[in-house]
Amino acid sequence: MSLTNASPEEAARAAKTASRKLAVLPTKARNDALTAIHDALSSSKDEILQANASDLVAATRSAANGELSQSMLKRLDLSRKGKWEDMLSGILDVRELDDPVGRIDLRTELDDGLLLHRQSCPIGVLLIIFEARPEVIANIASLAIKSANAAILKGGKESTGSFRAISTVISKALATTEVPNDAIQLVTTRDAVEPLLELSQYIDLVIPRGSNDLVRYCQRKAHMPVLGHADGLCSIYIHADADKGMAVDVIVDSKTDYPAACNAVETILVHEDALLSVMPAVAAALLAKGVSLRCDSASRAALSESLDKHQAALLQDVVSSDYDTEFLDLVVAIRTVSKSDNAVQTAIDHINEHGSHHTDAIITASEAVANTFCDGIDSACKFWNCSTRMADGMRFGFGTEVGISTNKVHARGPVGLEGLMIYEYRIKGSGQGAGMYGSGGRQWKHRRLPL
Amino acid sequence: MSLTNASPEEAARAAKTASRKLAVLPTKARNDALTAIHDALSSSKDEILQANASDLVAATRSAANGELSQSMLKRLDLSRKGKWEDMLSGILDVRELDDPVGRIDLRTELDDGLLLHRQSCPIGVLLIIFEARPEVIANIASLAIKSANAAILKGGKESTGSFRAISTVISKALATTEVPNDAIQLVTTRDAVEPLLELSQYIDLVIPRGSNDLVRYCQRKAHMPVLGHADGLCSIYIHADADKGMAVDVIVDSKTDYPAACNAVETILVHEDALLSVMPAVAAALLAKGVSLRCDSASRAALSESLDKHQAALLQDVVSSDYDTEFLDLVVAIRTVSKSDNAVQTAIDHINEHGSHHTDAIITASEAVANTFCDGIDSACKFWNCSTRMADGMRFGFGTEVGISTNKVHARGPVGLEGLMIYEYRIKGSGQGAGMYGSGGRQWKHRRLPL
Repeated sequence: MSLTNASPEEAARAAKTASRKLAVLPTKARNDALTAIHDALSSSKDEILQANASDLVAATRSAANGELSQSMLKRLDLSRKGKWEDMLSGILDVRELDDPVGRIDLRTELDDGLLLHRQSCPIGVLLIIFEARPEVIANIASLAIKSANAAILKGGKESTGSFRAISTVISKALATTEVPNDAIQLVTTRDAVEPLLELSQYIDLVIPRGSNDLVRYCQRKAHMPVLGHADGLCSIYIHADADKGMAVDVIVDSKTDYPAACNAVETILVHEDALLSVMPAVAAALLAKGVSLRCDSASRAALSESLDKHQAALLQDVVSSDYDTEFLDLVVAIRTVSKSDNAVQTAIDHINEHGSHHTDAIITASEAVANTFCDGIDSACKFWNCSTRMADGMRFGFGTEVGISTNKVHARGPVGLEGLMIYEYRIKGSGQGAGMYGSGGRQWKHRRLPL
Repeated sequence: MSLTNASPEEAARAAKTASRKLAVLPTKARNDALTAIHDALSSSKDEILQANASDLVAATRSAANGELSQSMLKRLDLSRKGKWEDMLSGILDVRELDDPVGRIDLRTELDDGLLLHRQSCPIGVLLIIFEARPEVIANIASLAIKSANAAILKGGKESTGSFRAISTVISKALATTEVPNDAIQLVTTRDAVEPLLELSQYIDLVIPRGSNDLVRYCQRKAHMPVLGHADGLCSIYIHADADKGMAVDVIVDSKTDYPAACNAVETILVHEDALLSVMPAVAAALLAKGVSLRCDSASRAALSESLDKHQAALLQDVVSSDYDTEFLDLVVAIRTVSKSDNAVQTAIDHINEHGSHHTDAIITASEAVANTFCDGIDSACKFWNCSTRMADGMRFGFGTEVGISTNKVHARGPVGLEGLMIYEYRIKGSGQGAGMYGSGGRQWKHRRLPL
């Protein structure tokens, strides 16, 4: 890892060159580099936490002046319980994943002695832009090395001291390995982000890790593809036949397990017939957890009638902009779906219009209704009878998560190491030319071979 | 298909809405629509060729004034031998391909009663921008309907009459099918391209089919991903141990089979030791086919000595910009790779620096050298002992070709129907929430299930 004061263009060009060296390193060389990073960080805990403490002092001052949020301050603090250990074990977890490089997923005999195959390979150079979470460097450096991608890292300025300390340690560790030094670069130059986002000749993919604003900024400015999602406006539709207990469990988890997460639910759509049978129990459970319920008139009327007075008094009126708001807080918007319309289709249309195509769920006893709903919505994750919070790379069993994507190309939904890979085609021939084939010439065999 | 005078935004919004309807149509409904299009075009041959003849009259006038190239004129002419029949049979070929929608490629039991799977689905709305080739409408409409993607088509102005005639026929044919009318739209509004390229909220992918300039324009202007390649600067490296006959066959085919194609070879890199053993036969064969050879000093000296006087007199000197030029013509640049360096690595470095990451090949008897070369180059297609012209979706056995991509994400190399697909995750649960798992709670099973 080089801690560079090079210009953005120099850093990006060097990363591109290094990416080709990294791309041909065997699995063991990349895994050994992860071990080296882990061990070096492990034995440098004191100096890194000291640098982090200095960042914290400055940040606490900014927070006191109202220039920095308390949650930002929390994220910056590497000494919080379990954070350091999680960072270190995360490196070893990534090391233990299967090598994503060189996997063959297509083999075709085009003709005698003319064999085609397709194999996975790294994308090339990643640009990772993140905010003040120092442990992200170790995480991203691990993912990049494991996937044989070079990476340029640009972190938030509040954690510059921590970043420098960590990257100095990683740099020394990598110098003892086969991973080229320029393969992982930390850019600390001020205002480097905008020029980096223009260098599409060197940088193949941008991964912003941070606020919605950061993602939107990258999406607007980048000349190369951006992996991620700006918004997570997830909805749950309660069908008429929903099981009450299941609706309560799923919705309480979706809203309260981690309200600031992108996969938390923000809107509940409820079938008119479930207003009195299912919704009161859901509403009572949410109110008991401190969730504000913003109700349309039909749901407010039904809930006012069925909840106890104390809870009913907490109900609020929804305003139309609530259906377009990612609250990221203990607030949920409720809309009743009339049974005089095609209720499932109304729910689908609402979600496709107001949602962010991230994760949406239905609670229903009917497989046919669940399928209609899942077919109709244009979302990366479509869940039947479980929490929207399931949308997560670790929960999906990917072993790691690069991010959650609402893109319509390349990678969608929770993205594991696979999302950092592309593929290449190779042919082994014996002198064939295209002119040999076609009318009057040889015919293609196109025989699929086992992998 | 609607032939729209709607604003670009209205057209795009309507396409997005239609895309959700198209996405849930069963295989048969989409295949029936292709049959309907085929039959309608077949019975409207006269009126379409008449409209095309009118376009040709105007275009011939423009060509006479030097405003239009002869090759453009050729591409516009639907009455050229075989073109009409190829257009019609192409629709049926696409119909016969396997349905790319709903293919399951991952199934995981996350926990008891919590089943995850991933399945292919259409991307959504495609914007296809092409030049004056009227048959492209039928081809693209077929690919879009087969893959359940909505498409907005914008063609070159020279063939507006042909486009209108074809799209009127397709529109009438689709009206008898389940495919929504707005799913395929032909935009004829002047200057619609730039606003369309900004509508990333409705359009998911741009596919430019035409000149390098058109592709570059789209890459520069589009706010959504662009599938394709601007340049096709392909190289072949002749190693010291290359078989002479094989080198001749492969290189003559790569250069002369179709010199204007993106996968034609433009640069030959030749190992110093092959200059006298292999290169004279290659050069003689190329010269006999009318190819201009732009030689560096070492190759010129060697060839001048070994070719007959007549042929030697045809040799030209290379200039450095030739190594960065896609000639698209019977011209090739030649560079000698010195054996005092690591010759294979020099060839790799040359290709990574000067090439367009499209298709590059090596001629060698050694598998180890071929692997080093293929590992080292950063190209979508890496061929050993066969023509660069093999880089083609039909030759690869994909049944169709959407284009050839040099992108590093989503789709790379020759792109078949798969490139028009993305995937979605679905979970079937029984009331699970994320809070049930983790320390002290349930453990994930993450058991891979058969597909």
